[in-house]
Amino acid sequence: MEIGLVGLGKMGANMRERLRAKGHTVVGYDTNPEVSDADTLADMVGQLSAPRAVWVMVPAGDITRSVIDELSGLLGEGDVVIDGGNSRWTDDVTSGKILGEHGIGFIDCGVSGGVWGRTNGYALMCGGRAEDVVKVQPVFDALKPEGEFGFVHAGKVGAGHFSKMVHNGIEYGLMQAYAEGYELLEATDIVDNVTDVFQSWREGTVIRSWLLDLLVAALEQDTGLASIKGYADDSGEGRWTVEAAIDNAVPMPAIAAALFARFASRQDDSPAMKAIAAMRNQFGGHAVHPDATAVRPDTEAP
Amino acid sequence: MEIGLVGLGKMGANMRERLRAKGHTVVGYDTNPEVSDADTLADMVGQLSAPRAVWVMVPAGDITRSVIDELSGLLGEGDVVIDGGNSRWTDDVTSGKILGEHGIGFIDCGVSGGVWGRTNGYALMCGGRAEDVVKVQPVFDALKPEGEFGFVHAGKVGAGHFSKMVHNGIEYGLMQAYAEGYELLEATDIVDNVTDVFQSWREGTVIRSWLLDLLVAALEQDTGLASIKGYADDSGEGRWTVEAAIDNAVPMPAIAAALFARFASRQDDSPAMKAIAAMRNQFGGHAVHPDATAVRPDTEAP
Amino acid sequence: MEIGLVGLGKMGANMRERLRAKGHTVVGYDTNPEVSDADTLADMVGQLSAPRAVWVMVPAGDITRSVIDELSGLLGEGDVVIDGGNSRWTDDVTSGKILGEHGIGFIDCGVSGGVWGRTNGYALMCGGRAEDVVKVQPVFDALKPEGEFGFVHAGKVGAGHFSKMVHNGIEYGLMQAYAEGYELLEATDIVDNVTDVFQSWREGTVIRSWLLDLLVAALEQDTGLASIKGYADDSGEGRWTVEAAIDNAVPMPAIAAALFARFASRQDDSPAMKAIAAMRNQFGGHAVHPDATAVRPDTEAP
Amino acid sequence: MEIGLVGLGKMGANMRERLRAKGHTVVGYDTNPEVSDADTLADMVGQLSAPRAVWVMVPAGDITRSVIDELSGLLGEGDVVIDGGNSRWTDDVTSGKILGEHGIGFIDCGVSGGVWGRTNGYALMCGGRAEDVVKVQPVFDALKPEGEFGFVHAGKVGAGHFSKMVHNGIEYGLMQAYAEGYELLEATDIVDNVTDVFQSWREGTVIRSWLLDLLVAALEQDTGLASIKGYADDSGEGRWTVEAAIDNAVPMPAIAAALFARFASRQDDSPAMKAIAAMRNQFGGHAVHPDATAVRPDTEAP
Repeated sequence: MEIGLVGLGKMGANMRERLRAKGHTVVGYDTNPEVSDADTLADMVGQLSAPRAVWVMVPAGDITRSVIDELSGLLGEGDVVIDGGNSRWTDDVTSGKILGEHGIGFIDCGVSGGVWGRTNGYALMCGGRAEDVVKVQPVFDALKPEGEFGFVHAGKVGAGHFSKMVHNGIEYGLMQAYAEGYELLEATDIVDNVTDVFQSWREGTVIRSWLLDLLVAALEQDTGLASIKGYADDSGEGRWTVEAAIDNAVPMPAIAAALFARFASRQDDSPAMKAIAAMRNQFGGHAVHPDATAVRPDTEAP
Repeated sequence: MEIGLVGLGKMGANMRERLRAKGHTVVGYDTNPEVSDADTLADMVGQLSAPRAVWVMVPAGDITRSVIDELSGLLGEGDVVIDGGNSRWTDDVTSGKILGEHGIGFIDCGVSGGVWGRTNGYALMCGGRAEDVVKVQPVFDALKPEGEFGFVHAGKVGAGHFSKMVHNGIEYGLMQAYAEGYELLEATDIVDNVTDVFQSWREGTVIRSWLLDLLVAALEQDTGLASIKGYADDSGEGRWTVEAAIDNAVPMPAIAAALFARFASRQDDSPAMKAIAAMRNQFGGHAVHPDATAVRPDTEAP
Repeated sequence: MEIGLVGLGKMGANMRERLRAKGHTVVGYDTNPEVSDADTLADMVGQLSAPRAVWVMVPAGDITRSVIDELSGLLGEGDVVIDGGNSRWTDDVTSGKILGEHGIGFIDCGVSGGVWGRTNGYALMCGGRAEDVVKVQPVFDALKPEGEFGFVHAGKVGAGHFSKMVHNGIEYGLMQAYAEGYELLEATDIVDNVTDVFQSWREGTVIRSWLLDLLVAALEQDTGLASIKGYADDSGEGRWTVEAAIDNAVPMPAIAAALFARFASRQDDSPAMKAIAAMRNQFGGHAVHPDATAVRPDTEAP
Repeated sequence: MEIGLVGLGKMGANMRERLRAKGHTVVGYDTNPEVSDADTLADMVGQLSAPRAVWVMVPAGDITRSVIDELSGLLGEGDVVIDGGNSRWTDDVTSGKILGEHGIGFIDCGVSGGVWGRTNGYALMCGGRAEDVVKVQPVFDALKPEGEFGFVHAGKVGAGHFSKMVHNGIEYGLMQAYAEGYELLEATDIVDNVTDVFQSWREGTVIRSWLLDLLVAALEQDTGLASIKGYADDSGEGRWTVEAAIDNAVPMPAIAAALFARFASRQDDSPAMKAIAAMRNQFGGHAVHPDATAVRPDTEAP
């Protein structure tokens, strides 16, 4: 089928390649003319025949909003827009309304797979009306991995990004679990070769997974991860997951711990731990100017 | 090769089958005569030719200790004992010493794979001297999964169970991450079919894993897990992992959260939350006898 | 001075008493005619002389919003409204705008002190313009405790409820700390009388506090807290505190743990722990139909 | 009464002063001759009349053990030894046995109060036989604060240090709660003066406490705690508390979070967060060499 694709960054460009390789016609648009197939968004829409389908693959938030807004004026009754970016599921509801007022269908689609997706396929979680999903199914089928899994129509508008958000929240927790185990193995001298231990876990264990495979690949490239700083960004979905848990009174201690660990990893110094140190100084005496008296109990006697 | 196998419970019996299927001679001993190949431990040892190898597969703690003690009197110079149970790595050091005084080699071997191991092979993490490991390598090769992974000689005595302990700690964290995501999906009505969403994640996603496959299998058998109580035992390794983290000043918030969640799952009521409720009552007024006055702020005004 | 007081629930009625006892003139309004000094909000405003001050003490959210809206039509240039309820600080910004369009000043005021406030005074944290705060200072002085502390003009509109929100977040963490310690003391038989231990901590220790006094009072009334269920509500501020932490990338593990513990305390069963139990069943064999074979390692061998 | 006091460090010297000021006869011994009242431990014992009481106030662990061992040879039937240091409660059981074999009574006594104790008195939590406690009661009465609280005979040998251990665990949690609140207030520009807000909380609030007073004192001396590094030691009791919780299957998420935060505060870099960063690099592409393509979704698309 024919599809417009807005946003030809790393992800968008890879998806265009995969779609074309599967025989679909893709008209891509990007603000970067070197990669774009159309001069403007309007030009892109003009190259599609009705009913039109447009996949939006741009940064979540303001940029997605402005693309959706512009498309609402360019498309019409019976067309479908898919937001494949990392939008917050609550924003999808707004997108669906804006487009719905023009008779345009809307599907939110969470996409997983990263740089591996072009070759292996992307896992897709989408939300929207069944009648809209069916129109774009050939595109979903081309993008998803071979095999019986990797695609779900999770529910109404918002359900796709909500599922993807939870997926990423789980991902935070999984990564933190491997990371904590890694640190403990590195912290002692009991195990000779930590990389070998992780390597061995790739078969026959309960904890085998794709993330484990990736961690082993990283450890093999860089023993002890000496070249990497312990600094981890977070892209939003982890925060949203914990916020959704709070909204729904769901206890989420492990995923929240993973999120907080990322926050802490980016701090030069911790104001909270300054406060701890300050209180300890106050009740424990002049701990910053230690008294050298010979025999005495630990200063945290309090 | 020839090997003695002490303990023919579910795990031990499966391992005997797998070893025999691979052409090894196994003399099994169990206190249950119906499954045992020998009348006594001494009888089992007597059926082996030197240098002898004995695999111990009995419950960790006192039972393992008494089997090791008895074997120290039955075996001799050049023989090797492997503890394949769930012993704490610190106990391995003791076992190694007891056997070493009689010239008997000792290998601690953490075993993963559960009921799937007989068919798929067991992941093995062992610790001990290289000269002892080499003697038993054929047995390790028979037990481990096909493929290049699933076996590691992690280091000195204790390194095997230490690695297995960390493996299980990671497992706690991974399971908790999936479980928290599951609960959030179930807590809202945004997603129509939670099982379908988990199912879809099995390909193309960052969070695909064997544990995910197992959770999907459980969800398919029992939608909403209606027949299962939210009650989770813990077998020791999770506790030991967090204790080892504490000993080594390693922050381990996610795995600890997973452990604490299991503790809480087994409580009829929470003494801690009684104390919280009691304090709230004290400062917030007679919260247990709510005042029905029409317009008033929330009772937690404090 | 003269002040209107909207909302005569437990908190509002107590505040009216304290203000009158300090010589101020209070015109109270409540939907309950039995406690109200005025027939309508307009009647209440009519009884005040300009420049008027009105203290709003009603439930946060929709009710506060509608009272503020109505007051914006009844008051005028130079008047001041104080929101003393538990509003979210982000709502204060809206309240300030609505009133500001009519030349009416706005102060948000977090109030702590609960049922003890009428006698001991209320701790007040307010936000707004200095020129508005000065107009109401006599009322703040009457409500606050004796002594040099208990009142702060924390900053612009919103700063009062933000400070109160953080106060409550800290409160969650403090209560959780005492509660966890309490549970540990109760869990062992090492200590003969847990109440006596808590009692002794009230002087000379690092952990002496008003909350400790309250917990001791509760323990003295009800040894072992036998009559109290371990069920703890949360009133919103704890959630908002953790959400504000997430918005600002502040690690907040202990307060979040306290919040999650309250969520868990209200669950009949835990969906997350069902998922854990389900996964353990899948890899550990028929754990719900335990095999009785004599000698075998723990079923979590995996 | 007469008492020997072993260990004249900061704590021991202060206690000697307080005891003498209350009219007791103290024979102090320290390896530092400048502060010692006796040349040797034997000399100190020789200066006491039977039945003798000796208070040991030296670092927990090996030093305490060796002092107890030596005293077991110097004292006899009817004498009493008090361990006032920070011993682990499990070590008390050993101390009690060693001394008991010589008919010497043993009391373990947790001491709180720090540098403030000399003036305000020390909170004391002791464990041992009632007949031993009564012999030393005059010393306890002199050391404890004025007022009805500050002393408890918590139970058998070990109960004193166990109570003190839990006290310190609670202290970890309380400090962490204040610290997290402090960091959140500092992280935004909503509040003008964080010190003023904390100052105001000292009266009328639910969170007023001695620790709050101390934190305010620190903030007044050093706005923003600019001169203090966010580095916090831990003295052992926090670790033991969490370990005791694990042993007793008690969920302890907030206190554990406080402990882990201290561990993290002392790390130059976090191996766990290196692992997180490494995994993110693996699935998110060359995150360390960011692609500059114009329009693209966040790199954590996976």
